Amino acid sequence: MALTIGVDVGGTKIASGVVDEDGDILDRTLRHTPAGSAEKVALTIADAVSELASRHVVTAVGVGAAGFVDETRSVIRFAPNLAWREEPLRKKVGELVGLPVVVENDANAMAWGEYRFGAGRGESHVVCVTIGTGIGGGIVLAGELYRGRWGMGAEFGHTQVVPGGRPCGCGNLGCWERYASGTALLADARRAAEADPSSAPHLLELAGGSADGIQGEHVTEAARRGDPAAHAAFDGLAGWLAQGLADMAAVLDPGRFVIGGGVSGAADLFLDKVRTGFAERLTGRGHRPPAEIRVAELGPSAGVVGAADLARRR
Amino acid sequence: MALTIGVDVGGTKIASGVVDEDGDILDRTLRHTPAGSAEKVALTIADAVSELASRHVVTAVGVGAAGFVDETRSVIRFAPNLAWREEPLRKKVGELVGLPVVVENDANAMAWGEYRFGAGRGESHVVCVTIGTGIGGGIVLAGELYRGRWGMGAEFGHTQVVPGGRPCGCGNLGCWERYASGTALLADARRAAEADPSSAPHLLELAGGSADGIQGEHVTEAARRGDPAAHAAFDGLAGWLAQGLADMAAVLDPGRFVIGGGVSGAADLFLDKVRTGFAERLTGRGHRPPAEIRVAELGPSAGVVGAADLARRR
Amino acid sequence: MALTIGVDVGGTKIASGVVDEDGDILDRTLRHTPAGSAEKVALTIADAVSELASRHVVTAVGVGAAGFVDETRSVIRFAPNLAWREEPLRKKVGELVGLPVVVENDANAMAWGEYRFGAGRGESHVVCVTIGTGIGGGIVLAGELYRGRWGMGAEFGHTQVVPGGRPCGCGNLGCWERYASGTALLADARRAAEADPSSAPHLLELAGGSADGIQGEHVTEAARRGDPAAHAAFDGLAGWLAQGLADMAAVLDPGRFVIGGGVSGAADLFLDKVRTGFAERLTGRGHRPPAEIRVAELGPSAGVVGAADLARRR
Amino acid sequence: MALTIGVDVGGTKIASGVVDEDGDILDRTLRHTPAGSAEKVALTIADAVSELASRHVVTAVGVGAAGFVDETRSVIRFAPNLAWREEPLRKKVGELVGLPVVVENDANAMAWGEYRFGAGRGESHVVCVTIGTGIGGGIVLAGELYRGRWGMGAEFGHTQVVPGGRPCGCGNLGCWERYASGTALLADARRAAEADPSSAPHLLELAGGSADGIQGEHVTEAARRGDPAAHAAFDGLAGWLAQGLADMAAVLDPGRFVIGGGVSGAADLFLDKVRTGFAERLTGRGHRPPAEIRVAELGPSAGVVGAADLARRR
Repeated sequence: MALTIGVDVGGTKIASGVVDEDGDILDRTLRHTPAGSAEKVALTIADAVSELASRHVVTAVGVGAAGFVDETRSVIRFAPNLAWREEPLRKKVGELVGLPVVVENDANAMAWGEYRFGAGRGESHVVCVTIGTGIGGGIVLAGELYRGRWGMGAEFGHTQVVPGGRPCGCGNLGCWERYASGTALLADARRAAEADPSSAPHLLELAGGSADGIQGEHVTEAARRGDPAAHAAFDGLAGWLAQGLADMAAVLDPGRFVIGGGVSGAADLFLDKVRTGFAERLTGRGHRPPAEIRVAELGPSAGVVGAADLARRR
Repeated sequence: MALTIGVDVGGTKIASGVVDEDGDILDRTLRHTPAGSAEKVALTIADAVSELASRHVVTAVGVGAAGFVDETRSVIRFAPNLAWREEPLRKKVGELVGLPVVVENDANAMAWGEYRFGAGRGESHVVCVTIGTGIGGGIVLAGELYRGRWGMGAEFGHTQVVPGGRPCGCGNLGCWERYASGTALLADARRAAEADPSSAPHLLELAGGSADGIQGEHVTEAARRGDPAAHAAFDGLAGWLAQGLADMAAVLDPGRFVIGGGVSGAADLFLDKVRTGFAERLTGRGHRPPAEIRVAELGPSAGVVGAADLARRR
Repeated sequence: MALTIGVDVGGTKIASGVVDEDGDILDRTLRHTPAGSAEKVALTIADAVSELASRHVVTAVGVGAAGFVDETRSVIRFAPNLAWREEPLRKKVGELVGLPVVVENDANAMAWGEYRFGAGRGESHVVCVTIGTGIGGGIVLAGELYRGRWGMGAEFGHTQVVPGGRPCGCGNLGCWERYASGTALLADARRAAEADPSSAPHLLELAGGSADGIQGEHVTEAARRGDPAAHAAFDGLAGWLAQGLADMAAVLDPGRFVIGGGVSGAADLFLDKVRTGFAERLTGRGHRPPAEIRVAELGPSAGVVGAADLARRR
Repeated sequence: MALTIGVDVGGTKIASGVVDEDGDILDRTLRHTPAGSAEKVALTIADAVSELASRHVVTAVGVGAAGFVDETRSVIRFAPNLAWREEPLRKKVGELVGLPVVVENDANAMAWGEYRFGAGRGESHVVCVTIGTGIGGGIVLAGELYRGRWGMGAEFGHTQVVPGGRPCGCGNLGCWERYASGTALLADARRAAEADPSSAPHLLELAGGSADGIQGEHVTEAARRGDPAAHAAFDGLAGWLAQGLADMAAVLDPGRFVIGGGVSGAADLFLDKVRTGFAERLTGRGHRPPAEIRVAELGPSAGVVGAADLARRR
């Protein structure tokens, strides 16, 4: 059975795994990301791959990385959190490990993993929305990963939802990820706790009394304990997610949305509202089958599994 | 040389043509649309096709129609302006004319026509935006028309650009076509002329003195004569178009946008501002090639040409 | 006891009454408004006043009218629904009836009536918001009616709440009355019933099956019967009212808001949500006493009572 | 001639002055603000007053301070930037200096100074908008300072202009001062320079090459040199100011607006656009005299002058 290696390069860690044709991970490594040096990142990837390749017969390597990857799946044009500018990662890693390499956007790799082996199985048109500190995305159309003309499609997080809205690190105003990401959820919870502490008893208890001390996991835990401010923050997230999915359905008309990323672990706190809101806002509702909305199934491994499978199909 | 027939079914007229492999129209007919009766529409289409087929050897028929067309290109699920609900148009027309028939959304047919023979030639990833009373759209990805999972993709006009914004006939608020269509352009011009007649001298002169009398063509003509209110209306349109194209580029990353529809005839009055605004708002600007923005070249014939060509490739 | 006459000139009817110092109406007349002729309106007012003056000893007349009244309380500069442009109503009516006359904006007269004898009693700083087809307003500060420098203050309905929002008859976009008036409530209910009939069973039953047939009173009745779409419309109204009141509190810091106009008859369906939303959005909340929010008590008589009392204090 | 002392308590400095009946400052002191201690602030104020009182015969003291001042002009309920919570400043300072004391909101004091001796002279209804890091305001109606029912009126900076907009320190979203203050101007300029350095040559040169290094004064200087990004930032400010003034005119109908605060020093770069935008958005335009819009004349002394004059009229 042919094995490939998937690598998921994040801002702090590099996860690698040997993946079989069923999407199962047979072996893993985890290394810190030497974020400040493009050279060292390439060397670390190569080192992780070599270690795994010494223990398994593998045929190719897929590398998923946060950044704009070019349409030839070779060069990372730009990565906000790493020292990459026009980085020829495919060539560098390929020369170091002596195996065929493909490079993918990390959200694309995750989407492909979910499509092949997770919550996207059995549906040909899948849009994956990854909700973490920002919002990433991946698109599978008619069973193929869609990358765009220049490899930069599916940047859902940077579509505008509020004209003149909250400033975004991308230089624009009112981007979706300023309203529907984990960062937005946390900011909303802190603001509510600051403005009206009586609405946020559990949030403040978990945070040691201060709104500034509220962390992302506190919002989830407080909502589960019935904290009104935490619930309100999740309701806000749900509303913006529902609108964004409805907008993407108007453009892409997928059969299914898959919601992944760290925030999807709290899907029980917002998914019903997303589904209801989506159904109310979908254009053409009543005259079209509505897309399903499901939670991702592969968790943090989706990137490794997806990158490995894309390498197999290179 | 193989010929096919393209039919473009609008709310008031049915245009048909015999089209060759170069996208040239060799023969044409034009009939009124019997909008109130689905049966009569099918008969009128068949009648037009039969007339053309009596004069040319044709191999297939493509019908483009305003409405939600299902993913099998057979049934019109719903058409806002015609009496169609789950109308099996492919079967009906096929039986009447004895030729293979495919049914397409009209904006998809136009987009395909422009991609093959017009402003989209030579580019693999083309997004066509048709600006008339509303906003329609068509997407060509890697040289294929993209229809969505259920045949309902590319409904760009109904993505939300202003939360809680202007009510749309689709039941939602703040849809793009409420801000960037010909209808919006006209409404903005009338409102400006009503509120401050001194800003709209040419508009009011053309309209016979009353803001209510301003028609779409007056806005274009007045802007060409230097009317401030008409120019302001085009500037508003340009701003909303630029934002919408930037949002679509974040999702679809096309190599080129093609702007068609009736309003595109006045592109000299707004296209430069659209391009500038698009460049300023494109996420990842500076790290990606920006999509080109061009004006459609086939004019009102794009639908007939595109539908005929899609029939050839059925 | 000194008696005065109050006249309330609406778009369809002219209500007049003899009012005593306790705000009680001792005698009334009601006439149709000859809306097309400024001369006839003045004559009709004079006729009504003369009839009442023939039965009571009165000392002055107060006329409340929908329109921009100048700062000398003499001239109606402009009235959207009546044939008045720079109409010297004070002089005309005064000459016809031989009594001192003052002219007031109708919403100002209503606000004064509520301040003196209704829901505003006992509070020195009262902001009255009148919710009907539009939104009118009146301001009492430190026990005095506030008219503005040119007689045109308190036009709350035309402050912008959504940039680029719903077009308003005043020529602007996104005015508050496009979101929080009875007209907005009805439009929201119709749109919801049109888009999703299953959410609007009572609305559609009351309207005879068609969303177009829904009238204002149906929305209230349907909400009382538990109709989801009608409730959603009231919730939307409540949210926009809460925001608008919070904004006015930031500027005017009143001790009390009084909500009047036709929609206030359904206050049981939205007032709690307005109060909650206001408390959540008031700037400086926690560090200031929040303004009270009460429903008007005088109903449609507030204008007659207020105009008469203002005449007494001329 | 009766003299009074005005004190302007800011977050970093306490300015005091002896002021005569013409609004001229005869003597001054300037001390650092011991911001962390309410006691020390009171002592510092008293010390400054005592020094001035040792050199002049004065009859009263007016203290203007950034914070919510109660309606009796005695207690500062809350000050965001100083250690005041329910601080009885009038009593404390009065006991220390043995003179009558009144306490005012600092923006109210500035507004009164401009009304009496600056850009508001000769007009009875003046709204003063102070644009610095935030937006403060003061209202003079019929020649009287308007404080609101609880002393908290004129908080213009915290009216909402964008639903769901930029988060504000007050706990709300979309407050005017997030769009039209000096802070917003600087953030807009930095964002533009970051996103497109080629649009910001002078900004970046003045800032030493980095967008993060841009300071408020650089924006003004760069705009004067023709920097496109700096001009765009001022244009944005002008648009939001124009809308906000139009909204306030709808509520308050003043005869004149006075624009003060640090940003007003660059009024040549935005005032014309504010006037034009205001005229285009004023509700009832064409049927009412538009309010004048003038730049403040007293500069940073307005607070001292106004506080002193309010003390004289206590």
